[in-house]
Amino acid sequence: MTNPYVHGYDHRENIRLQDQASTLADLLHSDTAYPAGSRVLEAGCGVGAQTVTLARNSPGASIVSVDISADSVAQAEQAVRAAGLTNVRFQQGDLFHLPFAPESFDHVFVCFVLEHLKEPAAALQKLKTYLRPGGTITVIEGDHGSAYFYPDSDAAHAAIHCQVELQSRAGGNALIGRSLYPLLVSVGFSGVRVSPRMVYVDSSKPELVDGFTKKTFTAMIEGVRQSAIDEGITDPATFDKGVRALYRTTEPDGTFCYTFFKAVGRT
Amino acid sequence: MTNPYVHGYDHRENIRLQDQASTLADLLHSDTAYPAGSRVLEAGCGVGAQTVTLARNSPGASIVSVDISADSVAQAEQAVRAAGLTNVRFQQGDLFHLPFAPESFDHVFVCFVLEHLKEPAAALQKLKTYLRPGGTITVIEGDHGSAYFYPDSDAAHAAIHCQVELQSRAGGNALIGRSLYPLLVSVGFSGVRVSPRMVYVDSSKPELVDGFTKKTFTAMIEGVRQSAIDEGITDPATFDKGVRALYRTTEPDGTFCYTFFKAVGRT
Repeated sequence: MTNPYVHGYDHRENIRLQDQASTLADLLHSDTAYPAGSRVLEAGCGVGAQTVTLARNSPGASIVSVDISADSVAQAEQAVRAAGLTNVRFQQGDLFHLPFAPESFDHVFVCFVLEHLKEPAAALQKLKTYLRPGGTITVIEGDHGSAYFYPDSDAAHAAIHCQVELQSRAGGNALIGRSLYPLLVSVGFSGVRVSPRMVYVDSSKPELVDGFTKKTFTAMIEGVRQSAIDEGITDPATFDKGVRALYRTTEPDGTFCYTFFKAVGRT
Repeated sequence: MTNPYVHGYDHRENIRLQDQASTLADLLHSDTAYPAGSRVLEAGCGVGAQTVTLARNSPGASIVSVDISADSVAQAEQAVRAAGLTNVRFQQGDLFHLPFAPESFDHVFVCFVLEHLKEPAAALQKLKTYLRPGGTITVIEGDHGSAYFYPDSDAAHAAIHCQVELQSRAGGNALIGRSLYPLLVSVGFSGVRVSPRMVYVDSSKPELVDGFTKKTFTAMIEGVRQSAIDEGITDPATFDKGVRALYRTTEPDGTFCYTFFKAVGRT
């Protein structure tokens, strides 16, 4: 193919769809659709949170979803079957040692994976070998340093920093979103385009106040409480003050901002 | 009018235009257009940086642009005349004591003004009195706490904080963008909709690297160097290190993010 279909490459369309998004899944994935017959590798499917949306938006594509955890793969498979989708094949495997032939996929999709890896560039380099010439890679990641809110609160930023610090100590990078462009370029992808997906929440959007600020972001921060205390990054009183400040932003006069980044590149 | 025209009210259209924007003026203003015959008050026009775009996008509207500084008003008038625009009348005046009859305007436009005021809510309250029932207000502000970048740098954040602190000591608020929603609601505007305008810069967009990261944002931060040192907020070595870190983000592997907020409400 001399003029390959490149999903998500029309940034303008991305942004239009972004505003139509009624859920976080729409915001992140509604403009990722692979053509019928294309072979797609989802690297790091976890329990299938993204896989169901991916498969639904590309009903004619043949998707292979892999994860290093056999348990996760089993859960993902169950989720996809429960959704009545039949275009995904699952396989347990390590991103760095997958049993695929070189250039055997048209597209690679990687979502919320690189943030956890010690060597994200090496992972991308490896995934690149599975792409045919002119194939595309799509990478989606968040960036916890993109979170700001009203009322502002040093304690809340400190609580968020606990999560960032723990992820860093585990070898990951919770601020990876802002660096997707240089990351993909450094691995040799061409035509790299990054499209930020900002979630802006105020009380005119109660579904986002509840679904994003409370149940997605703040719940995630709350989830590191014990680890952050155990690691000596914070103390209970300080951390709890930060979490209260995050909940404070969900009151009628509060606002909350967070940005995800989607990058698309070609081999 | 029972179904008044509300410019900029279609958030989806806002975002579509956002991506088409080739300049910062487009990003902020291209979806603000007032219908022919409407009476528009631009409160705080400064030297007319916004006025030219405003007048050009609403050729049939009658715009009255005011500023407290007679010098600024004179410069703004010259800029508008030089652009060949004839639909703006200029007047020197204090926002809190303007010589207009109540309800004498259809629309009010306020851009980069509230961030400088000790009492932004009182200013909005006053401006509201000049709007006819069902008239709209449009407020555009930045938020320096929305700035993040790659490579990340504590020194760069500290340099930005100097600007935020100086503006705060002068009675202003450089973080006002994130609070436009509660601000407009608190003053009694209805149907308030806030649309963030994120500027994402990487080296695939050289015009933004130069025009925004270097010449708009970093130049502004550099501009507070002496004041920040004089006020004891920083020292020369620390500040200069931060500015160097901001310039570092303009290299080929750097990225830079900043968000403006546009709010529209009705009386």
